[in-house]
Amino acid sequence: MTKNSANLRVRLPALIFALEVMIIVLYAVFVTYDDHTNALLQTNMTKPMENAVYQDYPFFADIQMMIFIGFGCLLSFFQRYGFGGMVFNFLTATFAIQWAILIQGFFHFYYDGKIHLGVINLINAEFACAVVLISFGAVLGKTSPVQLLVSLFEILFEVPVFGVAEWIVVKYLKINDAGGSILIHVFACYFGLGVTFILYRPSLNDGHSKECTSYQSDMLSVLGTLFLWVFWPSFNCALTLRGDDQHRAILHTFIGLSASTLTAFALSAMLNKNGKLSMADVQNVTLAGGVTVGASVDMMITPAAAYALGMLGCTACMLGYKYLSPFLARRLRVQDQCGIHNLHGLTGLISTVAAICELQELIPGLKAGLGRTAKEQALYQLAALGSTIALAAVGGMLTGLLLKLPYLASPSDEFCFDDELFFNVPADYNQAPVAQDLGCTETQDKHVNISHVMVQHE
Amino acid sequence: MTKNSANLRVRLPALIFALEVMIIVLYAVFVTYDDHTNALLQTNMTKPMENAVYQDYPFFADIQMMIFIGFGCLLSFFQRYGFGGMVFNFLTATFAIQWAILIQGFFHFYYDGKIHLGVINLINAEFACAVVLISFGAVLGKTSPVQLLVSLFEILFEVPVFGVAEWIVVKYLKINDAGGSILIHVFACYFGLGVTFILYRPSLNDGHSKECTSYQSDMLSVLGTLFLWVFWPSFNCALTLRGDDQHRAILHTFIGLSASTLTAFALSAMLNKNGKLSMADVQNVTLAGGVTVGASVDMMITPAAAYALGMLGCTACMLGYKYLSPFLARRLRVQDQCGIHNLHGLTGLISTVAAICELQELIPGLKAGLGRTAKEQALYQLAALGSTIALAAVGGMLTGLLLKLPYLASPSDEFCFDDELFFNVPADYNQAPVAQDLGCTETQDKHVNISHVMVQHE
Amino acid sequence: MTKNSANLRVRLPALIFALEVMIIVLYAVFVTYDDHTNALLQTNMTKPMENAVYQDYPFFADIQMMIFIGFGCLLSFFQRYGFGGMVFNFLTATFAIQWAILIQGFFHFYYDGKIHLGVINLINAEFACAVVLISFGAVLGKTSPVQLLVSLFEILFEVPVFGVAEWIVVKYLKINDAGGSILIHVFACYFGLGVTFILYRPSLNDGHSKECTSYQSDMLSVLGTLFLWVFWPSFNCALTLRGDDQHRAILHTFIGLSASTLTAFALSAMLNKNGKLSMADVQNVTLAGGVTVGASVDMMITPAAAYALGMLGCTACMLGYKYLSPFLARRLRVQDQCGIHNLHGLTGLISTVAAICELQELIPGLKAGLGRTAKEQALYQLAALGSTIALAAVGGMLTGLLLKLPYLASPSDEFCFDDELFFNVPADYNQAPVAQDLGCTETQDKHVNISHVMVQHE
Repeated sequence: MTKNSANLRVRLPALIFALEVMIIVLYAVFVTYDDHTNALLQTNMTKPMENAVYQDYPFFADIQMMIFIGFGCLLSFFQRYGFGGMVFNFLTATFAIQWAILIQGFFHFYYDGKIHLGVINLINAEFACAVVLISFGAVLGKTSPVQLLVSLFEILFEVPVFGVAEWIVVKYLKINDAGGSILIHVFACYFGLGVTFILYRPSLNDGHSKECTSYQSDMLSVLGTLFLWVFWPSFNCALTLRGDDQHRAILHTFIGLSASTLTAFALSAMLNKNGKLSMADVQNVTLAGGVTVGASVDMMITPAAAYALGMLGCTACMLGYKYLSPFLARRLRVQDQCGIHNLHGLTGLISTVAAICELQELIPGLKAGLGRTAKEQALYQLAALGSTIALAAVGGMLTGLLLKLPYLASPSDEFCFDDELFFNVPADYNQAPVAQDLGCTETQDKHVNISHVMVQHE
Repeated sequence: MTKNSANLRVRLPALIFALEVMIIVLYAVFVTYDDHTNALLQTNMTKPMENAVYQDYPFFADIQMMIFIGFGCLLSFFQRYGFGGMVFNFLTATFAIQWAILIQGFFHFYYDGKIHLGVINLINAEFACAVVLISFGAVLGKTSPVQLLVSLFEILFEVPVFGVAEWIVVKYLKINDAGGSILIHVFACYFGLGVTFILYRPSLNDGHSKECTSYQSDMLSVLGTLFLWVFWPSFNCALTLRGDDQHRAILHTFIGLSASTLTAFALSAMLNKNGKLSMADVQNVTLAGGVTVGASVDMMITPAAAYALGMLGCTACMLGYKYLSPFLARRLRVQDQCGIHNLHGLTGLISTVAAICELQELIPGLKAGLGRTAKEQALYQLAALGSTIALAAVGGMLTGLLLKLPYLASPSDEFCFDDELFFNVPADYNQAPVAQDLGCTETQDKHVNISHVMVQHE
Repeated sequence: MTKNSANLRVRLPALIFALEVMIIVLYAVFVTYDDHTNALLQTNMTKPMENAVYQDYPFFADIQMMIFIGFGCLLSFFQRYGFGGMVFNFLTATFAIQWAILIQGFFHFYYDGKIHLGVINLINAEFACAVVLISFGAVLGKTSPVQLLVSLFEILFEVPVFGVAEWIVVKYLKINDAGGSILIHVFACYFGLGVTFILYRPSLNDGHSKECTSYQSDMLSVLGTLFLWVFWPSFNCALTLRGDDQHRAILHTFIGLSASTLTAFALSAMLNKNGKLSMADVQNVTLAGGVTVGASVDMMITPAAAYALGMLGCTACMLGYKYLSPFLARRLRVQDQCGIHNLHGLTGLISTVAAICELQELIPGLKAGLGRTAKEQALYQLAALGSTIALAAVGGMLTGLLLKLPYLASPSDEFCFDDELFFNVPADYNQAPVAQDLGCTETQDKHVNISHVMVQHE
């Protein structure tokens, strides 16, 4: 522990200051204002209220709520890792956005030798940030006590790989993915799985004494879910075309989420012991519909189809938690801590397929702009899916290998899921009964652990 | 308990899936896009930024926060029923909105054989949802362990009755009720009281060992109050006329809430033992002003009048908690768990009367549009109030009778207010001292119980 | 304690009702609608969507979130003073806004013998409210058990003094202070320090047994920080010019906060024992960048400069908590409970200096509107800073003297930081181990106490 502390005391500041110096230099050299933030480009004819900020800022603010408050609360579900869940989310999100502004800037907002900056860049950067946070779900609490460093390194690599994927999908393949089901959710999922595949810890398959939730941590986590639920329509519509497209995106996301929420309650009661609901299901599975409607969220898919997609995605997600995650952990060395493969992977795949089906109907009429037939567009969508998965998985595995370098050595298992390694904890932290004393892995229904931990003791 | 569990494991999924199938079929047959969401109706002349979504979505998002986060936190005030309070609010709200989209759709958005859907429908549906959630306050925690089923059944009946009341009041009587004081608050109150009148449990008049709050649950609950407080202006103005009407609605709601908040602190210190403040008062009574300004919220009532209405409503609400609720529970078999008659009933009545008085002044000049004299309009307002109360009370009682059918049998008293019947609870749930061991009904000031429970041990 | 209770039972209601009567009379006599809320001023030509409410309300709502939810959660960091932190914030904010509407109304919105009211007044009043809440940070938890009265009296004096400062700075000196670094943060800081200087309690320099946080209170407090962080761009841009100025204000605030957040993590690990992070730093120091960019937030300072300001402000704030606050407490009788001098004072000073430097570059070209040279404008900025500090410090000290009047006698030290004096607490409140039993001032890292309490036991 002394050694680990030393790591943080010296290495964390050193790494952060190095990153900050790098960022500020790059900002100074490359980043300038865009047409809507540059005072020199405003003329007497400029109408202030037509500034892009009034279209973009409301959505930006909503997504901020999701990233910092929604994710932050959701990830604080561990009894003894609440500080870690919420605070490291804060740190990693902040850094990911700064870094994404630069990386995406070079890909999408670079001309005249400069990256041009407005609130629209921040929205894009928050999407990249969401990718990072989702993929972190696969290794939550397990990479301590140098997790802080690890996180920042992981971001350093993940964001550029995501930038490449984004460029391929959006600029080159020109596919339809308004809600980011392919780009954001599928990419984040397979990147995270790539990392956790490399960082495999066999002993954690048998559960860990600190992998418990508490009554308060479960409440806070479900509050995070509610924030994500409420603002998800803003996330799915932020980058769609203004007007009726954006309007439909909001409707479909709301309907999809509603359907998946009802379904999640039904399945939770049906599949858990004694017909009792599991808070882990309420926290995660309810959200599946938001991802599933993503790829076709702005199309004329009909409200009933959005409803069906929500039910379908939720069912796949729930069955994934119940049956697929334990299998992946035991057989394929993929320990998916928060079950991101269920909430983001399976649902993203369904969303992609749904968008392809939908396009078959639409292209003959409405969307022939790209000069592609329906079949061609379907192939492009599949190519986008395939290249996203490949890039993400390979990128994730390379990142995992990097994180195994001796300098960043992982902690022994006993130090996982514990705030005390990172934080000066209040006096009552050590007054609370330790998980193993309470026997949380014995007395609780197993599914609470399973869905967070993918380990089934049966 | 085994039997109850069996109920949930089989009946809850069965009921939910049946409801989902019904909804998706109705959506498929009847629901289509409205003019602002239908891509086929956009022409080269359509300006995307004039889409109705930009007027409606911000208010919709604010009301979402109130429904899912504000109500969710507020209702989790019980020490051992926090999961239930927050999570069942999530479930019931989600279903109520889906159902209201259909019911209100037939009443208000139906033409050419279809319900036409846009974000404006969602706002309307959230108002119906608010009605459902308010009326649930009367029976919170008491209808377990089949409460989930009960809730969904109650919604199934309450929303259509509300639809009828809405149609009568808005379309037929054409009264002024911008903030929904009559339609939403009075209806919800008397519907809830109707249900609880039928589901009377004499033994609960003497208190219940689990009817306690905890320090954390009180904090979370007051956080919910703050969310409701902050977004209440959006609620009261969402359906008013755009422009100065909406502007006034925001001002008056803010002023009314401010006045009632100050007053609530004064009265709480004055009426409680030892001059100490009660968290139950902070959680509930502070909000009274938002209801009281409702019926006249968009009129030119002056800021001072909004202030006076806030003080008046708060005082009525506080005295109701203190004196009327215990009386109703003991003498009239009306056990109003959250005191909705104080926060929504009395305040709604005051609001109605205030709007009538105000109309007497205004009609000769400004609002003669309906061709009614001031006296006539007053009678219409009274007719609206009367028919709302009658419909609500009768509807509520019929729903209560239905809930007493053997198939939906209520739990014995001991199973009330307990998460463990519904949820896999974390290990620390049973480590927390049980309420009766702490003697919460003895050592705490009675008012905490009274205001939530309406039972006075004197 | 009996005497104190009596104080609240009689004096609190008496004071509140007196204030309410005063306010309602002043509202009735002086407050009317402005051009955008007065129905009588709308003509056939008025376009409803051009009403000012649509420009102002979104920012108002965001700032409401900061005031009531962000501050409320942040201030509930004490283990045994969580109700007090959150609920008294609610009460004082509500009253401060009502009072500021009148005071600022007379200064800024008064013509034709009336104060004219719209949502823009509410935004201004919330800025005054922020001043009050920040300055209260200096004495948090220490003025009990008549703190409620004290708070209200303090507001009664602070708001008018702030009104004078605002008038001098904005109307007379015409300086650049878009984010309110001088007016809001510096004023609030020195007013609060003035009060606490007079209310000096030597014994508290040695720590207080109840000055502990708990795991849950730290979580809630950091949640408050996140709300403030997310909405800070709205705060800093709410009163800037529409269009590109407002757009830049959002960008710079976001960048400044991001930089200060990263820096805060680095410095917290570097300066605390064992390289562990302190939650107090995460709760406070991360926010420094929002203040530091304030005075130049709408200028063309470049994104890199915003980043540098965030780093600089954060470093000053952190070093202030570590070294300056203990010095002020021990040597200068300034016990700054929440460290407002670090988060608002030092950062405000830096912000002012930065704005002056920036103006030296800009004035020759862009902003010559006032007919002042760069040097002249620099002197005006300095004059604004000086007069703000002087007014605030003197006003604060006079308020402190007033609060020492026998009628408002302070509590003995043992009654500080304790909810039980004000609230009917739930049964589990006294089940929680008392701080001194846990020895929180012994076992915890000292910095948690230091940064909140400025007391170093070394």
